[in-house]
Amino acid sequence: MLPWKFIAEWISRGEVCMREAKRILVHSRTRYQEFIIAELEGLGKSLIIDGKVQSSLLDEHWYHEALVHPVLLAHPCPRRVLVVGGGEGATIREVLRHNCVEHVDMVDIDEELVEQSKRLLVEWHQGAFDDPRVNVVIDDGRRFIEGKRAEYDVIILDVVDPTEGGPAALLYTVEFYRLVKRALRENGIMVTQATSPVLTPEVYASITKTLSAVFSIVRPYVTYVRSYNGLWGFVAASDRVDPARLTPDRVDNLLRERVRGELRFYDGSTHGWLFSLPKPLRDMLQRTGRIATDSEPIAVPV
Amino acid sequence: MLPWKFIAEWISRGEVCMREAKRILVHSRTRYQEFIIAELEGLGKSLIIDGKVQSSLLDEHWYHEALVHPVLLAHPCPRRVLVVGGGEGATIREVLRHNCVEHVDMVDIDEELVEQSKRLLVEWHQGAFDDPRVNVVIDDGRRFIEGKRAEYDVIILDVVDPTEGGPAALLYTVEFYRLVKRALRENGIMVTQATSPVLTPEVYASITKTLSAVFSIVRPYVTYVRSYNGLWGFVAASDRVDPARLTPDRVDNLLRERVRGELRFYDGSTHGWLFSLPKPLRDMLQRTGRIATDSEPIAVPV
Amino acid sequence: MLPWKFIAEWISRGEVCMREAKRILVHSRTRYQEFIIAELEGLGKSLIIDGKVQSSLLDEHWYHEALVHPVLLAHPCPRRVLVVGGGEGATIREVLRHNCVEHVDMVDIDEELVEQSKRLLVEWHQGAFDDPRVNVVIDDGRRFIEGKRAEYDVIILDVVDPTEGGPAALLYTVEFYRLVKRALRENGIMVTQATSPVLTPEVYASITKTLSAVFSIVRPYVTYVRSYNGLWGFVAASDRVDPARLTPDRVDNLLRERVRGELRFYDGSTHGWLFSLPKPLRDMLQRTGRIATDSEPIAVPV
Amino acid sequence: MLPWKFIAEWISRGEVCMREAKRILVHSRTRYQEFIIAELEGLGKSLIIDGKVQSSLLDEHWYHEALVHPVLLAHPCPRRVLVVGGGEGATIREVLRHNCVEHVDMVDIDEELVEQSKRLLVEWHQGAFDDPRVNVVIDDGRRFIEGKRAEYDVIILDVVDPTEGGPAALLYTVEFYRLVKRALRENGIMVTQATSPVLTPEVYASITKTLSAVFSIVRPYVTYVRSYNGLWGFVAASDRVDPARLTPDRVDNLLRERVRGELRFYDGSTHGWLFSLPKPLRDMLQRTGRIATDSEPIAVPV
Repeated sequence: MLPWKFIAEWISRGEVCMREAKRILVHSRTRYQEFIIAELEGLGKSLIIDGKVQSSLLDEHWYHEALVHPVLLAHPCPRRVLVVGGGEGATIREVLRHNCVEHVDMVDIDEELVEQSKRLLVEWHQGAFDDPRVNVVIDDGRRFIEGKRAEYDVIILDVVDPTEGGPAALLYTVEFYRLVKRALRENGIMVTQATSPVLTPEVYASITKTLSAVFSIVRPYVTYVRSYNGLWGFVAASDRVDPARLTPDRVDNLLRERVRGELRFYDGSTHGWLFSLPKPLRDMLQRTGRIATDSEPIAVPV
Repeated sequence: MLPWKFIAEWISRGEVCMREAKRILVHSRTRYQEFIIAELEGLGKSLIIDGKVQSSLLDEHWYHEALVHPVLLAHPCPRRVLVVGGGEGATIREVLRHNCVEHVDMVDIDEELVEQSKRLLVEWHQGAFDDPRVNVVIDDGRRFIEGKRAEYDVIILDVVDPTEGGPAALLYTVEFYRLVKRALRENGIMVTQATSPVLTPEVYASITKTLSAVFSIVRPYVTYVRSYNGLWGFVAASDRVDPARLTPDRVDNLLRERVRGELRFYDGSTHGWLFSLPKPLRDMLQRTGRIATDSEPIAVPV
Repeated sequence: MLPWKFIAEWISRGEVCMREAKRILVHSRTRYQEFIIAELEGLGKSLIIDGKVQSSLLDEHWYHEALVHPVLLAHPCPRRVLVVGGGEGATIREVLRHNCVEHVDMVDIDEELVEQSKRLLVEWHQGAFDDPRVNVVIDDGRRFIEGKRAEYDVIILDVVDPTEGGPAALLYTVEFYRLVKRALRENGIMVTQATSPVLTPEVYASITKTLSAVFSIVRPYVTYVRSYNGLWGFVAASDRVDPARLTPDRVDNLLRERVRGELRFYDGSTHGWLFSLPKPLRDMLQRTGRIATDSEPIAVPV
Repeated sequence: MLPWKFIAEWISRGEVCMREAKRILVHSRTRYQEFIIAELEGLGKSLIIDGKVQSSLLDEHWYHEALVHPVLLAHPCPRRVLVVGGGEGATIREVLRHNCVEHVDMVDIDEELVEQSKRLLVEWHQGAFDDPRVNVVIDDGRRFIEGKRAEYDVIILDVVDPTEGGPAALLYTVEFYRLVKRALRENGIMVTQATSPVLTPEVYASITKTLSAVFSIVRPYVTYVRSYNGLWGFVAASDRVDPARLTPDRVDNLLRERVRGELRFYDGSTHGWLFSLPKPLRDMLQRTGRIATDSEPIAVPV
């Protein structure tokens, strides 16, 4: 029998990838978004929010390890970490591997999504929600961060792509990044997921440019996530520490000293790969992008 | 946002219809089949079994009223009725409208499907399962019918299409129809759903031809079901009564006398339409088809 | 290898049928429309205009014979016939079978489509374009008909569905039908294809209602065309002759007397089937529809 | 209007990417393969062979520059080059940029594909077929190479993926690579496209392992090609020269000295990125793969 239940991911109106949903574990519409947890052909168990695969068992580590470790290793010894988004619990899972970490605040807007993740995405969080160092707050990330002054060593923005009127539209603007900076302590560093440098290059370049208006050290870097249909971008930003300076050997040494458990994706060589962009992406970052503001935010098409 | 959850129905390897699943109520794999109950674009709430829409709120009455009423009206006064399949409960719903009916046995093989239908397909059964005249048996239809001798006035075969090795493969053979005949009383009549006369004409013609080897009066007739992607066939068979002889006026009179409630699809004119096949279908029934046997059954491709 | 070239036909944004294009004979964009002639899975060689299958070898006769013969047989002896649209040449092919016919004007707006049809759709026209009784005019159908007074016994409107701003938008309005009436002779009768009574019932009912504002005898009738994904509607209209009055026997006699060659779809019984609508369609025609005007035309969604 | 002409690329039976074909320039079945040249949504003009995008205007340079330049720069001064496959003419285009190159043999099996490429893929070859250094031979690559002894400095295998019984099935075996080695001169180096390290890791690892049975220096490296749905692999092999030893600075210097024109993808930093594989790919290459032979070749699923 040919497959008959599909999840479609639209790249544009004329380009779509369809994957068989072998088992549908939950389908829900919350106040903020519509999500499905299903076992997808090729990807395995996956979380899909508003038609976009958010992460899959196949390669969530290509994403989460790339998101977390470069900035945590760039910091001399991160004690307090804030994660905005990251409902699956895999981001805090990676953060908690670092010996230095004493406290993690995780702020997610969607309580139902967090609850279903705790229940159905055990392979992601692996019990991280129960770690005594973790404090989960159900709140809007921007509102939460507004009250903070010099509280965190590292801030990780693990939220959905910016879309017009979407829940993350104002988590990619210059005003928001100023709030993030204010919430960082000395030697503080932040990182944000930054959309696809190939499918939405203007958005990726704009996030880089917007951060450059706030921080003096801004490092775009790129991984590959099959579940996201290609290369995937991040930007790290700080006024003091620079992950691009870490050599492969230094990364491997730091991993031994400060990080517990076996990583599946990230090591010194991978670090080098992440931070060496191919020429077309470097050229694109030069050529395009604009500063995003609360009144003129950026958005990916939906 | 473009639709992103789809149910695909394959007509062949090169022809597929995809419909958005707006709400997925249940996805289950039972011992016998895989089914989903979902709200589909265009069709509304629908039951899909093994990739085929079985019925939808949009037009289940084009199917169920066409299946039930011609044979019940052709009989002088049907008291005992057997329904094989019909898990949704809509077939017994229509049977119970007939004043003559005193007892209905309904035999379905899949207990979980029947239970989920009771819970989620209330618009179909409308409480019919609770009618004191109804006796639901969870069993294989063929095994159930084997023990019966002259027990029913009408037997209605409302089962899935025959597929190689599928649960209904042996419910379309000459051996099975002989069991059906033996289970019918004097003046008895049976009807079976009979696949698409356009997409699987050989199967439709074979069912007709196979019944002609057992019964002396065999009447193929055809309705339209959008949810089934086109025209849909039935065959009625008897040794004594003939639904094709009912005139539109006679049908309208019988409906007034013997049937409770308002029908949405069936009336005298509709009866005329059901039994007057267009020439290509008449020609096809002449030209093709073979007698299906237990050792060489017929099957639709999957 | 799985099929990899597809023609998609969208029923709505959430419902789409995809068919493999096994051989692509021509793809062209003209001033008026975009069309492909290709061999499609299930349908055989097909003409697709702006994403809608216009006709296929599989069942163009279910459409063209139903369009042409009822109105030509209803007329005492049609000598002069006008066909608007019908670029494939199959409509004039059927018209030319009638002994009475002395002259056919065929008006189509798209010269390139007509030329490609002559070249690639030989199975459709079967040489009809070369019949000395046929006069092909490349022109807008409405402009052509405006100058005509009492010239035709039968007018056949075989044009694409009305769409907002599309080439046929003003060929379904009360003003246009008045022009048609003026162009008909005594005993004249017209017929129009009328979209799907199931997928776009309001449009079908509106065409019926609009014709009722102009003609005293208006007969909606319905065939099935697998290539059009279901039931398909026509409306015949006249002030004097009535195809619904033709009995099956009368149709069979007239076919013998006045029509050359073997028909594949249409005969007396088929005629009865065409004109006996199932109850839901009769009810729908009662309930819905409005008079379409040049300033407020009707349109199917695209 | 929603897109209605699609090219589908199946990753597996349950995973498919569909792209709108905006303009279809040619569809042909040759003795060896079926191909379409069309303008695809997202990718621009593209060549699709047997349902797989072979290259697109969007990013053919991510593929062709990665294929050609590392091995040509690793060689002290390549004078004679053999290209097997590469019908689009973009591979020879890149080869001809190198000042050292005096002669290029290009062997492709499919004359019609080469002719249509010359006519319709001008942006790919950019006149390279007319360069006096180029000699195009229509022949089976393996038969051609069998007669060669120490003739080439560089051999580039730019052929379709190995498939069961496909035209390239025997261009990835240990026997074939021995023929390649015999055809190389001292300091000679070869490179082959090597399928996706993510979608078909066993095939990629097997190509690497098979080359290791023949050559002493074997370097798998990886680029990204959106048109190929992800990361894409190559393997370079030699007994004397090693592209992995080239530092970014050395690459930039060699490009200035030996290569004409502006490259769009490849430079020193890109070279570093190409040869630094992320950890999961390094681990996979350790873990899996086998030596492919003529009697037990490797194949990607179709």
